[in-house]
Amino acid sequence: MSATRQQAPTSAEVEQLRDKARLLRIYSLRMTTAAGSGHPTSCLSAAELMAATFFHAMKFDPADPNSLSSDRFVLSKGHAAPILYAALAEAGVFPVSRLTTLRQFSSELEGHPTPRIPGVDAATGSLGQGLSVGAGLALGARFQKSAARVYVLMGDGEMAEGNVWEAAEFAGHYKIDNLIAMADVNALGQSDRTMYGHDTEVYRRKFEAQGWATEVVDGHDMAAVVAALDRAIATQGRPYAIVARTEKGHGIDFLADKDHWHGKPLSAEQLEKALTQLGPAPPVQKDDGRSYARKSLPMPPDFPAPPPPTYKIGEEVATREAYGMGLKNLASVNPKIYALTGDVKNSTFSETLQKAYPDKLIQGYIAEQNLVSTAVGMAAQGLVPFVDTFACFLSRAYDQVRMAAISRSNINLCGSHCGVSIGEDGPSQMALEDLAMFRAIPGATVLYPADGVAAERLTEEAARRPGICYIRTSRPKLPVLYSADEKFPVPGLKVLRQSANDRVTVVAACVTLYEALKAYDQLKARGIPIRVIDLYCIKPLDTTALALNVRETGGRIVTVEDHYAEGGLGEAVLAALADGEFAFSGVQRLAVDRVPHSGKPNELLEAFGISAKHIVEAVDRVLQTD
Amino acid sequence: MSATRQQAPTSAEVEQLRDKARLLRIYSLRMTTAAGSGHPTSCLSAAELMAATFFHAMKFDPADPNSLSSDRFVLSKGHAAPILYAALAEAGVFPVSRLTTLRQFSSELEGHPTPRIPGVDAATGSLGQGLSVGAGLALGARFQKSAARVYVLMGDGEMAEGNVWEAAEFAGHYKIDNLIAMADVNALGQSDRTMYGHDTEVYRRKFEAQGWATEVVDGHDMAAVVAALDRAIATQGRPYAIVARTEKGHGIDFLADKDHWHGKPLSAEQLEKALTQLGPAPPVQKDDGRSYARKSLPMPPDFPAPPPPTYKIGEEVATREAYGMGLKNLASVNPKIYALTGDVKNSTFSETLQKAYPDKLIQGYIAEQNLVSTAVGMAAQGLVPFVDTFACFLSRAYDQVRMAAISRSNINLCGSHCGVSIGEDGPSQMALEDLAMFRAIPGATVLYPADGVAAERLTEEAARRPGICYIRTSRPKLPVLYSADEKFPVPGLKVLRQSANDRVTVVAACVTLYEALKAYDQLKARGIPIRVIDLYCIKPLDTTALALNVRETGGRIVTVEDHYAEGGLGEAVLAALADGEFAFSGVQRLAVDRVPHSGKPNELLEAFGISAKHIVEAVDRVLQTD
Repeated sequence: MSATRQQAPTSAEVEQLRDKARLLRIYSLRMTTAAGSGHPTSCLSAAELMAATFFHAMKFDPADPNSLSSDRFVLSKGHAAPILYAALAEAGVFPVSRLTTLRQFSSELEGHPTPRIPGVDAATGSLGQGLSVGAGLALGARFQKSAARVYVLMGDGEMAEGNVWEAAEFAGHYKIDNLIAMADVNALGQSDRTMYGHDTEVYRRKFEAQGWATEVVDGHDMAAVVAALDRAIATQGRPYAIVARTEKGHGIDFLADKDHWHGKPLSAEQLEKALTQLGPAPPVQKDDGRSYARKSLPMPPDFPAPPPPTYKIGEEVATREAYGMGLKNLASVNPKIYALTGDVKNSTFSETLQKAYPDKLIQGYIAEQNLVSTAVGMAAQGLVPFVDTFACFLSRAYDQVRMAAISRSNINLCGSHCGVSIGEDGPSQMALEDLAMFRAIPGATVLYPADGVAAERLTEEAARRPGICYIRTSRPKLPVLYSADEKFPVPGLKVLRQSANDRVTVVAACVTLYEALKAYDQLKARGIPIRVIDLYCIKPLDTTALALNVRETGGRIVTVEDHYAEGGLGEAVLAALADGEFAFSGVQRLAVDRVPHSGKPNELLEAFGISAKHIVEAVDRVLQTD
Repeated sequence: MSATRQQAPTSAEVEQLRDKARLLRIYSLRMTTAAGSGHPTSCLSAAELMAATFFHAMKFDPADPNSLSSDRFVLSKGHAAPILYAALAEAGVFPVSRLTTLRQFSSELEGHPTPRIPGVDAATGSLGQGLSVGAGLALGARFQKSAARVYVLMGDGEMAEGNVWEAAEFAGHYKIDNLIAMADVNALGQSDRTMYGHDTEVYRRKFEAQGWATEVVDGHDMAAVVAALDRAIATQGRPYAIVARTEKGHGIDFLADKDHWHGKPLSAEQLEKALTQLGPAPPVQKDDGRSYARKSLPMPPDFPAPPPPTYKIGEEVATREAYGMGLKNLASVNPKIYALTGDVKNSTFSETLQKAYPDKLIQGYIAEQNLVSTAVGMAAQGLVPFVDTFACFLSRAYDQVRMAAISRSNINLCGSHCGVSIGEDGPSQMALEDLAMFRAIPGATVLYPADGVAAERLTEEAARRPGICYIRTSRPKLPVLYSADEKFPVPGLKVLRQSANDRVTVVAACVTLYEALKAYDQLKARGIPIRVIDLYCIKPLDTTALALNVRETGGRIVTVEDHYAEGGLGEAVLAALADGEFAFSGVQRLAVDRVPHSGKPNELLEAFGISAKHIVEAVDRVLQTD
């Protein structure tokens, strides 16, 4: 908004900024009292930081605040939403009158920020994620030659979150110098004083240890805050952290640095008293009921068809290898593709992308939370990020994935080494809950390719689809089942074995699909034809095709998955059929039913009940219950 | 093992320790070559640290290495499991001959450590969790007046994980001076050099910034390592971090500091060559097939009945408030009870415990990963920890919960503020995937009390049960349904409304149960009797009672939950019935089907389809399909 950011501010400008801070305080108090809930004191500590950032430091287009050329702001301490909304309104993004709708059912101004609001790129409110989002936004600008900067405001309470320090080390390591972090150290958490209280030096040293330029300022001294922001903007080669000593509730005598005010709005009477301490207040403007929600959110860009898979049927390839090849092929036709790896690129095979396009893979080290939230920031700049690690370690970032969904973010995640079929490494490395995790993410797409062709095709599909896309890949090399021109629509499934006389439908995926095919052969030899389905898309599920097949086999069904029973493939199938008023006549669900242990992959498929032998037995059981 | 830990070691002792390190290297190489997989080079960098720790610093009983009086060791870099097993064997915990069984299906010596192995307190292998476990073990010792120390060995790769720094700030803040951390800085990750390579100063400064005593040593200079451990042991008032500069693969010329050796065993020929570099090797001893797995794992201690709930039927109380009261009552009869809160004790109501027993609540600040893994350490010392935060923020620690299950740990977690019924704060604060998360944890108990009586009773139940217990509590005050002497067996359910003519079973819990009761009244007025079930225990599920009720209502069922559909109450019910060869004649599942937003609780129950009105409509739909 300011054209003066390289110049020292005049005292008149500082005075104007002080008045902005005063206005932001007034709005924040009024909004929360009107709403009857919210966190006014957490807003008051940040008023000078917010005013200086929005009205001195940042350059952005109020009509298009989420554009690549606009400086961006992330309110990591999302509970201070009212002061963000106040700043956006005062900057002209939407009218000040809209502020009166805070937290109402019909309003886009929710209790915590979401990207429904123009100027917001990612939902915040689960603390400690904003700096990672900011790092992703800053990288997204850098990669696309934008000179825009990213400002992230954090609270000191949330700086206990490890995610903050994953982001700090990442930004320091990659010298993300278009990223400016501000810590609003008001020393009061929700329920106690924070761990370090007003010891701002601790935060400064922690940032400094990780390669940041840092300084400590009095967060209520507007001239000092402005000067710090100017130094931050002028600093090159390092990200900049401004550690601001502030007071929670600052500006109101009965709130300032007082306990037991977290998350409490003022009563009408208390508001009246507070406003007298803040000087002349503008009249309250009545909302006209018009929504200012963003009309559209970022969508993955379209791109031409990538080179097709080149595997021959029967050739042995692990789906994780094909994922890497798929990424490489995608990058050849879509310049927006990037991958972030958690120091496992040689296991997940994103190194295949890197070997062809060295700049397209970001080594994110062993810090999964930061990987995911950085991807959210990159996606908000129009990029198409793929995050990879062992599937079990995506559980480390489940909160970040949850928030990505609330952010309506378009990110893709690939989890390798799923299930007991990884073998000797043991249960800590086996993902057996990832399908449950990702199925419970609203709007997510959950893909589970069985072979190399499916893995490449579904990697492309993920790049095209909005929302969270999860690709589950496996460790073992397995024979290619599909011809290279096979298509894998979403939703969809493949019927691999069928006849008019099929007596049971077996639904499987990847490793267990191969077991189902073995079971098919064994049962066929005994004169029992079964139908075998590759459920490569677990969510959304092709309920119509599934129900048709199961009905044709008399309602008899066996599901088998390298996953725990709860929330996995079997429950997905049951739920889909039950919702369709389906009459089961026999159901057997095979899944891992306890903590597994180390062993050879085949020993484990056998021991944990998901091998061909168990499928045959389950088919027999289903037929016996007829 | 050593009686000399306060005295400077003689040169003879140092020489003996060097030989121990040499032996540990030999065993590690042999074991991984025999297994055909594993991480030998990650073991070699740690040989001096391991030898000095096990054979100079630690005091423990090899016959009872997990006892309260024994010093404990946590191998946070779990992939170096072979050298841990070698050290345990060399210390006499089990015979050296057992080492040859590494990674075999029949062996307790899994690819990564689990507590099946004597001397191991928590599973590791998902990186960055060990320091939190160590902090919990150390607090567990402190709280129970044990002078035992806890040693944690970390790799530098894993120190990119935020969890490590949550643990570091926690241990620094609480001056946990019986905790000694060692960082094995070998500078090589799995796929690249680590973020900071051999810049050991970064790690030292990060620990120091958070209140630790620290030093950097040459991790292959045995005298220096021993001296550092002696200083660590002598240091009081602060935890101690030894940052050791090491080489991955140290001791073997073709492995030392070489890329592309992560996670690769030597061939027989390479092993031969390596052994010649390590000097005289003892003969390989043949395993006799006997298992050395721990016979029993810690169980929650028994305790007398706590004071019963005192609520009157109809009195309004939130289940989160009753949880706090339940904790307080428990603490009056069970001295092992502790709670850890993520700076939300005034929302989750663990402050009720604190007000009565100030020492029983640990303020863990906003660092959920550390809360959970610290609890795992405390449980391994025989304590009964309860972790509380908003249920949605437990998703932050899903990996830690997953590892707790692999650890067979007895920890309890309470997640408050579940579902859309929290209202105005918006989706970032609403847990809508927590049932899916916890159902997919093997052996977990998932409790969802509807009223104050149930919440208190089930909090007691959690304290008695082994494994992971999750208690889901709600924000709104709701009328008490049960008399104070009501029992809540696990598994179990309550039938709140029934008649001989019931036409549909409605299964609900907590907030939606009250909606179901309203629906009952409305339907009754229309002459349609329904059965209403309070499913207070989602896992394990009382399949028999459920099936009986559903059968009595003609197989017609409506489920309604303040949770996403995937993996929640509805799928749990379907799965339980389907496994029982149950014939559905009509199923309706009501659940939140998209990202919600802010609003009043009742507006949201209505908008997201889980109010009484929607239950009535679902019952009508089920009856129409007859």
